[in-house]
Amino acid sequence: MADTYARYDAGQIRAWTNAVFEKLSVPPQDAAAATDALVHADLMGIDSHGLARLAVLQSYAPGLQNGTVDPKAVPEVVHEAASTAVMDGHGGLGAVAATRAMELAIAKAKKTGAGFVSVKNSKHYGASSHYAAMALEHGMIGLSMTIGGLGVVPTFGRGRRLGINPMSVAAPGGDEPPFILDIATSVVAGGKLELAKMRGQQVPTGWIVDAEGRPTNDPDDFWKGGALLPLGGAPETGSYKGYGLSVMIDILCGVLSGMGFAASIREGRNDLTPHFQGALLVEGFGSLEAFRAMMDNMVQTLRATEPAAGAERVLVHGEKEFAAQRDREQNGIPYHPQVVGTLEKLASEVGIPLPAPVKG
Amino acid sequence: MADTYARYDAGQIRAWTNAVFEKLSVPPQDAAAATDALVHADLMGIDSHGLARLAVLQSYAPGLQNGTVDPKAVPEVVHEAASTAVMDGHGGLGAVAATRAMELAIAKAKKTGAGFVSVKNSKHYGASSHYAAMALEHGMIGLSMTIGGLGVVPTFGRGRRLGINPMSVAAPGGDEPPFILDIATSVVAGGKLELAKMRGQQVPTGWIVDAEGRPTNDPDDFWKGGALLPLGGAPETGSYKGYGLSVMIDILCGVLSGMGFAASIREGRNDLTPHFQGALLVEGFGSLEAFRAMMDNMVQTLRATEPAAGAERVLVHGEKEFAAQRDREQNGIPYHPQVVGTLEKLASEVGIPLPAPVKG
Repeated sequence: MADTYARYDAGQIRAWTNAVFEKLSVPPQDAAAATDALVHADLMGIDSHGLARLAVLQSYAPGLQNGTVDPKAVPEVVHEAASTAVMDGHGGLGAVAATRAMELAIAKAKKTGAGFVSVKNSKHYGASSHYAAMALEHGMIGLSMTIGGLGVVPTFGRGRRLGINPMSVAAPGGDEPPFILDIATSVVAGGKLELAKMRGQQVPTGWIVDAEGRPTNDPDDFWKGGALLPLGGAPETGSYKGYGLSVMIDILCGVLSGMGFAASIREGRNDLTPHFQGALLVEGFGSLEAFRAMMDNMVQTLRATEPAAGAERVLVHGEKEFAAQRDREQNGIPYHPQVVGTLEKLASEVGIPLPAPVKG
Repeated sequence: MADTYARYDAGQIRAWTNAVFEKLSVPPQDAAAATDALVHADLMGIDSHGLARLAVLQSYAPGLQNGTVDPKAVPEVVHEAASTAVMDGHGGLGAVAATRAMELAIAKAKKTGAGFVSVKNSKHYGASSHYAAMALEHGMIGLSMTIGGLGVVPTFGRGRRLGINPMSVAAPGGDEPPFILDIATSVVAGGKLELAKMRGQQVPTGWIVDAEGRPTNDPDDFWKGGALLPLGGAPETGSYKGYGLSVMIDILCGVLSGMGFAASIREGRNDLTPHFQGALLVEGFGSLEAFRAMMDNMVQTLRATEPAAGAERVLVHGEKEFAAQRDREQNGIPYHPQVVGTLEKLASEVGIPLPAPVKG
């Protein structure tokens, strides 16, 4: 599929995105942080959280253009201890506040072994794994969470009371790629539903409920007052677990930062959102070299699991992202024609031509 | 159901359990910690992790009796930074090492805002939520994880390569009960399978696979080379998420402490296991009072969710445990006749008579 898409050189796309942010009055260092977040998501193959959002989501270019995102907002530390802090994003780009918060968590972890920063009044920050992965080059385990759009039903309920809350954990490997977990705490994210709807397909049991809270296979029911199910699907297959993980994210991002929880924040009808960024220094626990060797051993053991009947092989989290990154850095990033259309439109609005594809 | 069981006074059961541990050469402070862990699980209604284990699991009384658990082992800090540490349990009671590790995490969080302790060479520690909940009275969010028995298949694989790894997160409330999440990262824990097998019942699709890694509804298949599925069940409903959470627990407990990961630890055919204990000081982020008020608001909002068609109401994590605790402290702890049998046997072996039931 990806090969019918036009591919764009990663370096050229990076330069273009950076120029667009700067043109929209974002200071150079902040433009670089926001560009990193979007292009890194595209490189890792998380296409739903890269440039696909730049020209369409209020938290990015449209918000900068219409004044709902403050390009010059400076994230501010409003409370602090040796290993913890709360940062106020002051309504600027989510990737800027989230990057500064992760940098602060890493700086704290360098000193004490652990750093955790809860962030309020930020915006959509892209892919969680971008921030968790920032910890890797410092020999740290990284953690990142955010509150997503209101879209998930709590177990035994009806309607949307929980955010589509993602979390990511990254841990350094040795010769093997790092472990990178990046998951929503709902069964699936919204994008897969839109795809099914577009294609006129039914969705598997366990993805969504209708307006009365009953399981359904019709994706349209989601837009008629329905909701996504928490990870686990039905009560008998553990939906209270995904529900609880979603609330945990609400607490760490929203309640700890003092901003609120998914249902209270989204009631405000704005796109402000909180995050939670963390880092643990491996050498706060022991030898980094021994850690890397044991990670490799674990990854190799998991990968060597005998496949199920009919399955190809067992994958470990981060493997696919690592392969995508290598491919895309070499061969360019493939963008869906529809995404290219939105980028072309933005390019003409800001007067900075989109680079030509390298392959299409 | 619980009312056909005999009930035992919580205070008397606590005194008896404590006396049994002391009789088996456990020093008073450690006997108290182990007693707390087991009786607290029973009070919270986590019956599978309380006294039901005391007389039957190698990690408790049988191990103390046959010398595989060292009653006088002193957990030792072998590596430390301001907010982090690794502790070696030296093969003593799991609840002792886990309690000391949580106490250390709390002490560190008091100073820096965050404390995380990875523990190696410990044993079965009971219910994760007991340790996470230790943080609550200190105005902290508590976290606890451990590597369980090998029983879970990674997505697309066959056979047991992952532990039945639980995690718990506890956060203080105000007038409402605290939030207490306590979940295994498999769809269900092993106990529910045993129950289905005993009753000759089929299990829901999404719980287990057979020896070839194919979904099955026959609980017997689990004991014929099958395995539990990770939370999420099938690949299309997010099983790689539960799989990844299980690996995350392996990393934080086993790789960080230097002990190994589920598959490598269980290969050793002993019952040594690692844990990960953490605490975050709410006041490292902001006002505890404001946090408590917002937690109450969140819990009340979730609980007020309109129920699904046919459902009674939406519960919040910790609510059931809190209600069980109130009931059992007042009316006694109900034990299954089979559990009472194992306790009677232990009582006669150590020469300390089991208290009489208060109601039966």
